Order: sequence, then structure tokens, then C-alpha cells
Amino acid sequence: MDVDSRIATSHAEFTVRRARAEDVPEIVDLLIDDRLGKTRESQDMAAYHQAFEEITGDPQHFLAVCEDLQGRCAGTFHLTLIPGLSRGATKRLQVESVRVAAAARCSGLGSAMFTWAEKFGRAHGATLLQLTSDKSRGDAIRFYEGLGFTASHEGLKKAIRP
Amino acid sequence: MDVDSRIATSHAEFTVRRARAEDVPEIVDLLIDDRLGKTRESQDMAAYHQAFEEITGDPQHFLAVCEDLQGRCAGTFHLTLIPGLSRGATKRLQVESVRVAAAARCSGLGSAMFTWAEKFGRAHGATLLQLTSDKSRGDAIRFYEGLGFTASHEGLKKAIRP
Repeated sequence: MDVDSRIATSHAEFTVRRARAEDVPEIVDLLIDDRLGKTRESQDMAAYHQAFEEITGDPQHFLAVCEDLQGRCAGTFHLTLIPGLSRGATKRLQVESVRVAAAARCSGLGSAMFTWAEKFGRAHGATLLQLTSDKSRGDAIRFYEGLGFTASHEGLKKAIRP
Repeated sequence: MDVDSRIATSHAEFTVRRARAEDVPEIVDLLIDDRLGKTRESQDMAAYHQAFEEITGDPQHFLAVCEDLQGRCAGTFHLTLIPGLSRGATKRLQVESVRVAAAARCSGLGSAMFTWAEKFGRAHGATLLQLTSDKSRGDAIRFYEGLGFTASHEGLKKAIRP
């Protein structure tokens, strides 16, 4: 289902579109330009390209790039539609890997991206948005709470050996 | 990739298999037999069956039933493989809707289910297990921490109108 690809803040206009292979390096740059991301991203571009193929080959995923009017990548987020039986067979829209480029931070773009994601979820039958945020990201958590999210859950992770 | 379908606790043996349509009522019974689940499950079996079809039609999902040697449903969990670009293109294995039947609780089945899920994740290239648990589920959170999970993240949810 189509969701209008244009989003606007009080400062600027952007276009949300599916990422293309040639966007991968710019998305990875956004992932690295982050207090936590800079310690855990990799030099192995082949791994990112392989993951990109898996993501874009599956219609349950929407890996988004937000372009400004000059065609620069100002933000990215990754949506996954997850059907499930619990909560009365609720379909979830999970949001991962949200980043806004340094030049576009505090511009309202993050909030506009989430408004767009919510429309995308609704258009695809999701009734629950969910994400996790590292507990050290106090500003991000307050931002999400301001958007109507509730920190009702513990987000538990466990690394496993390949 | 195949993962051995047998799991054993010190008390009993079980088989892990993909859920079939005829299992849906029993899985929903397990979802309802829960302090939080009993308030939020639905009478609309058609919705559960529709979600079941979506789940089982997508190879990135494994909706599991654990059967005891008498063929009774003793537990259920729902795994989703989620490729992504962040964390060096980490593939995640997300775990949702974990339930153990009342008669099988405290038997070690929950722990055995997670050992199986970890093997499944590893066999499919996942290097991060993740789940969220309602903050009011103190026992469950301690159980997950005992399995090696870290409650490093806030789990944020937002209901959206259909």
C-alpha cells in the first residue's frame, strides 16, 4: 500500500523512499556517526551489502532513506512488519536503526520520520509500534516518550557465537 | 537448516516442531493462561488463524510448539529472523510469545526452549538474540538474565489505531 513519500518539518522538505544498493555506504556512515555505533560498526562492506539484499528481498521490510531536496541522505530507519498470535493476533511494526544526519538533527526530521512510519504501519495492518533503545540514550528515550511510546518493557539482548 | 527437534530436561523429553493450523486453539489457550495475556487476548479465532497463515507463509518465522511424549502442547514460542545493517550487519533472532503450560512450569522446559532457539538462530546466521519482557514480569526477567540476556535496552511500545 502506498504512503505519501513526502515529509515536511517546519524547516524543510524530505522524501522517504526505499534504500537502494548505492545508498548502503551513506547509511553505514550514518550508523557510524553515533556514540554507540562508532564502536560497533564494521569495515566489512560486503556484509552490509549482503544484509541489504536480504532486507530488500523481503516485502516485510522497509529500509528507508530520507532525502533532502538536494538529494542528500538526511536520515534512515528500518521498519519490519511482524505478524504474531499474541495480543489478539496483533501485527507489530518494529523500528530499528534510526539515525538522523548531524546536519539535520533537532530539525523535526526524527519526529516526521516516526509520523511517516506510523502511517506505513497503519497502511499495512499494524496496530503496535515497537522499538528498543539503549538505556544510555536518555535523550532518545525522552524523544520516543514524547511521541507517545511507553517504556513498559525491558529490552533484553544476548550475543551468540556465529 | 535443520536443528534437532528433540529437547530434554532432567524430568522429561519434548519435541519442538513448527505449529500447524490445528495447534492454533491450543497456542491461544497458552497465551490466555497468563496474568497479562488473560486481559488482552481475543475471542476472534479468525484473526488468530489469519495471523497464523501470515507467520507460517514466511520462512523468516518459526512458530514453535513443544510437545511432550503424549503429544500434548507443553510450550510455545515464536522466532523471527531479522536481517539488518546496524551492528556490522548483525542478523537478529527475535523471540516473542513465549509460554509454558502450567503443568510444565518450573520443569526446565523454558530453559531448554531457549537453548533450542539459540541453536536455531546460530544455524540461520543470527548473532544476536533479542526479546522484550513487560517490566512487571520480574520472574521472567530474572529467568532471562539467568540465561545470559542483559536488560541493556528500554522496550518502548505505542499502540496505533487500525
